[in-house]
Amino acid sequence: MRLRKKPGAPAKIAQYPQYIANMPEEWVGKWHERFNNNHPIHIEVGTGKGRFIIEMAKLHPEINYIGIELQESVIVAALDKLIEEQLPNIQLLHVNGGSLTQYFAKGEVDQVYLNFSDPWPKKRHEKRRLTYRSFLENYEEVLVPEGEIHFKTDNQGLFEYSLASFSQYGMILEQVWLNLHESDFEGNVMTEYEEKFSNRGHRIYRVVAKFPKRN
Amino acid sequence: MRLRKKPGAPAKIAQYPQYIANMPEEWVGKWHERFNNNHPIHIEVGTGKGRFIIEMAKLHPEINYIGIELQESVIVAALDKLIEEQLPNIQLLHVNGGSLTQYFAKGEVDQVYLNFSDPWPKKRHEKRRLTYRSFLENYEEVLVPEGEIHFKTDNQGLFEYSLASFSQYGMILEQVWLNLHESDFEGNVMTEYEEKFSNRGHRIYRVVAKFPKRN
Repeated sequence: MRLRKKPGAPAKIAQYPQYIANMPEEWVGKWHERFNNNHPIHIEVGTGKGRFIIEMAKLHPEINYIGIELQESVIVAALDKLIEEQLPNIQLLHVNGGSLTQYFAKGEVDQVYLNFSDPWPKKRHEKRRLTYRSFLENYEEVLVPEGEIHFKTDNQGLFEYSLASFSQYGMILEQVWLNLHESDFEGNVMTEYEEKFSNRGHRIYRVVAKFPKRN
Repeated sequence: MRLRKKPGAPAKIAQYPQYIANMPEEWVGKWHERFNNNHPIHIEVGTGKGRFIIEMAKLHPEINYIGIELQESVIVAALDKLIEEQLPNIQLLHVNGGSLTQYFAKGEVDQVYLNFSDPWPKKRHEKRRLTYRSFLENYEEVLVPEGEIHFKTDNQGLFEYSLASFSQYGMILEQVWLNLHESDFEGNVMTEYEEKFSNRGHRIYRVVAKFPKRN
């Protein structure tokens, strides 16, 4: 993703604390209060411009969504959509996806979405991939027991890597799709990237992986 | 695979007991004696006309190979190749791949190959797929602890199914290839099917999956 500094972005983010908490670490263990209900919480790590999670929030009012994105210039685009839609069941979180445990209590999250994460193809950047072991540890920590990751990508290398990484971590692959758009999967909500890359003829891969039972 | 009765096949099989044991159940736990050495034993379940396993046997004289195939008309073609090649490190086994435990002792096999297994695409035929749970139980029984299955196919549905089946059985995916022929995998030995289908533009999928440590 090309990153441009967007003048006015910090001011805009500060202006809408109802959508992007100013002091997110203060909500650890209290996200249900912030949503004013006890609905399940689904987070998307690397939410980009927010199309996926906002669409999901519209389709599933019985679920609370939190879109996590570190890039200011990008999360502002998601914020713009939120201001327009005024949905009660979605929040943005302007933090690093690698520090989830600072913002969520153990077991506070019901499901994790990863969509079209940066592939970091070079071996020496393996640790930056959102499906690398240390990230999985974080997801497991904030997720309910036996929680799931729902992961989509068009990147073959990242998908090969991630299947092995999930499995070697001890996760169980519940289902794998090697060509999502030509499968019988229903209710797929596309991300901005997904639409662009599938229009270029890329296959979309998907997997649902579950953390193992721990004693 | 189209199956034709081949007249003379049973007679031919009976004629070459040095390549296809007449009473294979008598070799349970004694395959090393049959090979006259203690080299590792790799088996291919569904060996077809034998091109893969014979090629492997030529490339790896330090390994003993056993090709297992139930279809008489097909295993005879493998036998013909064997008669021509006269390799000391390969045997054929004319039995059902679902009854391995009748022919091998616990831990007698070092590695299992599955290549282009019948996809049995209908849900009601799931139990016939060579990566179905009951087959995995058999492979685990005859394999050394933490033994591996090396599986290749061009069939997307079977590959999706098998990744999930391995994982749900408790196996660990060591590596996944979503386009083997365009990967940096070295030393790939093609099967008859593999050559035919990849020439038609099919992707070839591959996975190495390991059985878990048991206490």
